[in-house]
Amino acid sequence: MSEVVNKTLNIGICGLGTVGGGTLALLTDNADEIRRRLGSDIKVTRIATRTLDGKDLHRVETVSSDVFDVVNDVDIDILIETIGGYDPALDVIKRALSKGKHVVTANKALIAEHGNELFEIAQQNKVVLAYESSVAGGIPIIKALREGLAANSINWLAGIINGTGNFIMTEMASKQRQFEDVLAEAQKLGYAEADPTFDIEGIDAAHKLTIMGSIAFGIPLQFDRTYTEGISQITAEDISYAEELGYCIKHLGIARRSGKGIEMRVHPTLLTKSRLLANVGGVGNAILVHGNKVGATLYNGAGAGAEATASAVVADLIDLSRHLNSGAQAPLYPALGYWEMDEETPVLDIEDIEAEYYLRIPAVDRVGVMAKISSILQDHHISIEAVIQKEAISETVPIIILTHTAQEKQLNQAIAAIEALDDITGKITRIRVEPFHGEAT
Amino acid sequence: MSEVVNKTLNIGICGLGTVGGGTLALLTDNADEIRRRLGSDIKVTRIATRTLDGKDLHRVETVSSDVFDVVNDVDIDILIETIGGYDPALDVIKRALSKGKHVVTANKALIAEHGNELFEIAQQNKVVLAYESSVAGGIPIIKALREGLAANSINWLAGIINGTGNFIMTEMASKQRQFEDVLAEAQKLGYAEADPTFDIEGIDAAHKLTIMGSIAFGIPLQFDRTYTEGISQITAEDISYAEELGYCIKHLGIARRSGKGIEMRVHPTLLTKSRLLANVGGVGNAILVHGNKVGATLYNGAGAGAEATASAVVADLIDLSRHLNSGAQAPLYPALGYWEMDEETPVLDIEDIEAEYYLRIPAVDRVGVMAKISSILQDHHISIEAVIQKEAISETVPIIILTHTAQEKQLNQAIAAIEALDDITGKITRIRVEPFHGEAT
Repeated sequence: MSEVVNKTLNIGICGLGTVGGGTLALLTDNADEIRRRLGSDIKVTRIATRTLDGKDLHRVETVSSDVFDVVNDVDIDILIETIGGYDPALDVIKRALSKGKHVVTANKALIAEHGNELFEIAQQNKVVLAYESSVAGGIPIIKALREGLAANSINWLAGIINGTGNFIMTEMASKQRQFEDVLAEAQKLGYAEADPTFDIEGIDAAHKLTIMGSIAFGIPLQFDRTYTEGISQITAEDISYAEELGYCIKHLGIARRSGKGIEMRVHPTLLTKSRLLANVGGVGNAILVHGNKVGATLYNGAGAGAEATASAVVADLIDLSRHLNSGAQAPLYPALGYWEMDEETPVLDIEDIEAEYYLRIPAVDRVGVMAKISSILQDHHISIEAVIQKEAISETVPIIILTHTAQEKQLNQAIAAIEALDDITGKITRIRVEPFHGEAT
Repeated sequence: MSEVVNKTLNIGICGLGTVGGGTLALLTDNADEIRRRLGSDIKVTRIATRTLDGKDLHRVETVSSDVFDVVNDVDIDILIETIGGYDPALDVIKRALSKGKHVVTANKALIAEHGNELFEIAQQNKVVLAYESSVAGGIPIIKALREGLAANSINWLAGIINGTGNFIMTEMASKQRQFEDVLAEAQKLGYAEADPTFDIEGIDAAHKLTIMGSIAFGIPLQFDRTYTEGISQITAEDISYAEELGYCIKHLGIARRSGKGIEMRVHPTLLTKSRLLANVGGVGNAILVHGNKVGATLYNGAGAGAEATASAVVADLIDLSRHLNSGAQAPLYPALGYWEMDEETPVLDIEDIEAEYYLRIPAVDRVGVMAKISSILQDHHISIEAVIQKEAISETVPIIILTHTAQEKQLNQAIAAIEALDDITGKITRIRVEPFHGEAT
């Protein structure tokens, strides 16, 4: 039916779980479409999987139980790593690259934590290590940052990049439910793992932010410098107070170039309710990117799932195939998009950032408390934008304060001083506010 | 400061208006950033402009008044066509491609109406004709469709792709203003041209939809087959009735693969208010794309303006430079993304589509009118989803009907039959409703 004008590429898949299985299914289901686009076939010649029970192999000829059989297969042009985790995935990728094979991976933890070393090996062997599927599932955000927005100096980006966390925050907000309650439901629905730490404590989001930040600014991957705070401390009350002030709370990954260095941080964030980003609900992902020329652009879609992730894995395969068919002698672009990396600009400590803040202060309902709090804030050069103080229903009343822009170090000192007052009955809840300086849609 | 490892490319710019001027400024302002990304410089060696008054030439050495001087300059690797319009832009592009120069253009009218011929010339000469900036300004939507979503068979796409029109619709909705009133303001603000026909009658949007539809489905560019309807007939009353039913009205370009063929249509459309797409206000653009594997992804940002459009022009330049530096012997992908085009699937007549419909029927306030209307709709296999009938304030009352899915041909016949009733006092307003079959975010 279709005219095949280019070389058929042989693919090996290591790991036939959710993403590997989805990739194999996509290559079968959409084979005609891919051939029309590519002028050649993509053929999966070998698969490595530990267990075969019930899996549809879609006429793949060779199945191994040892992933290194794929690495050692000389006929394979491109290896897809969908094992996940660190071991043996790291070793598989290293050896495949060293043997001159191109590699496509969906492994965000591996790229975020070992990417610098892996890209070095890829470069030495003049092969490509592609990783579009490692961030935000089917949304082509790596391509947008590295190619589509390449004419810009990126000022900042902010993303909802963990579907589980966003599902929980959306449910809490729309139904006034508490965190533990929604988490249990998310686990029942299969949106959250039995051990949900990676999602709800922000580690998964920090992996993705680390990768996006590197491509946005041309800095080495620095996962250990990315500040990470989860959503488990957010209460239905905070969401309700934020709403009263015109905000919603989202778990965001934010990367920003500031005068002092680069901010890389994952934490719950207050956003003005009318923003598009604030209206991304459920398990969806969305990334807002601000370039110095293009302004703000937003990318939204499914951030996880077998089919959406496979869409990005196969997009990398198609890119690689087009690249190999063109006769190119070298990768088209450096892995992180920059020939000249910025090794000098530091990723800032969280204490060195400036932000606006939401504070919920549990105070005794007594005359003069607000005056003491105001005075401490003023001593630390923190000015107040808005206050909510409710009628007391018990001895303790929450005082809600929105601050103007302040230094986080100053704010931490102010919080410690306020918590030391006799009138304060517990820990202060602090949530950062992201105004995007009025710039974004 | 920066290490230059690749060949410096010589660029010629034809036309120094908004986009050409913006491109020249961007290449100057972001030269360091581009060098870091590219490992080489992009140097504008020659410009052609009819008038120089007040223009900043950013140290470009050679300025011509004749655009063909750029075409004939043998030292120029890539020609940027930012003249706009048909003449002499078409001739400039044809001759440049024939001379083996790569061309980058922002000219949507030229691509939509003459692209098939131009891409043919480019292919014969093994050069690239790049056009990311021709659709949706700085949003990298061409790249997303051709590369990022290439693993998918695209089911449909729907976009707000004319900023002027969206500004007008947003103002009408948020301030209950009438069309003529807002148009006059848009002209004063510089958002609309003195002759606004291209924007408000949907021709500009139809150009962009034609291009996106071709890349989405791999079909030849068929501007003359794209159904085009403007926004000048929409009233503040329609917007208000739609709102009462839970909808807003947006001017959309929709391309869809159906069982019978391909739908390509630009028209005002009712959208459920809670959708992200419905919340894109002002001069913003947004495109929602549905792939068979990835599901729905949304791309939003500035669809026009010197800097946003220049961002896309220079993204094409950077792609081309990376491509040339890689040693590639041929373009990486066919211009419209498909090696095998679908020349057979027809673009459908508007009468052959199926949609849901909003009808505003001006009727005499008399017993039995609604029964007659219902009967005619039933005769044409059209079922009613919702009705609003207000108390009469004059002799005529508007009856608002939302239908379930119906054939447009049947609907047209029903409208003619209803308009022929004695009880109907004028033309029926018909606006299509887009439910996206519940699939999109």
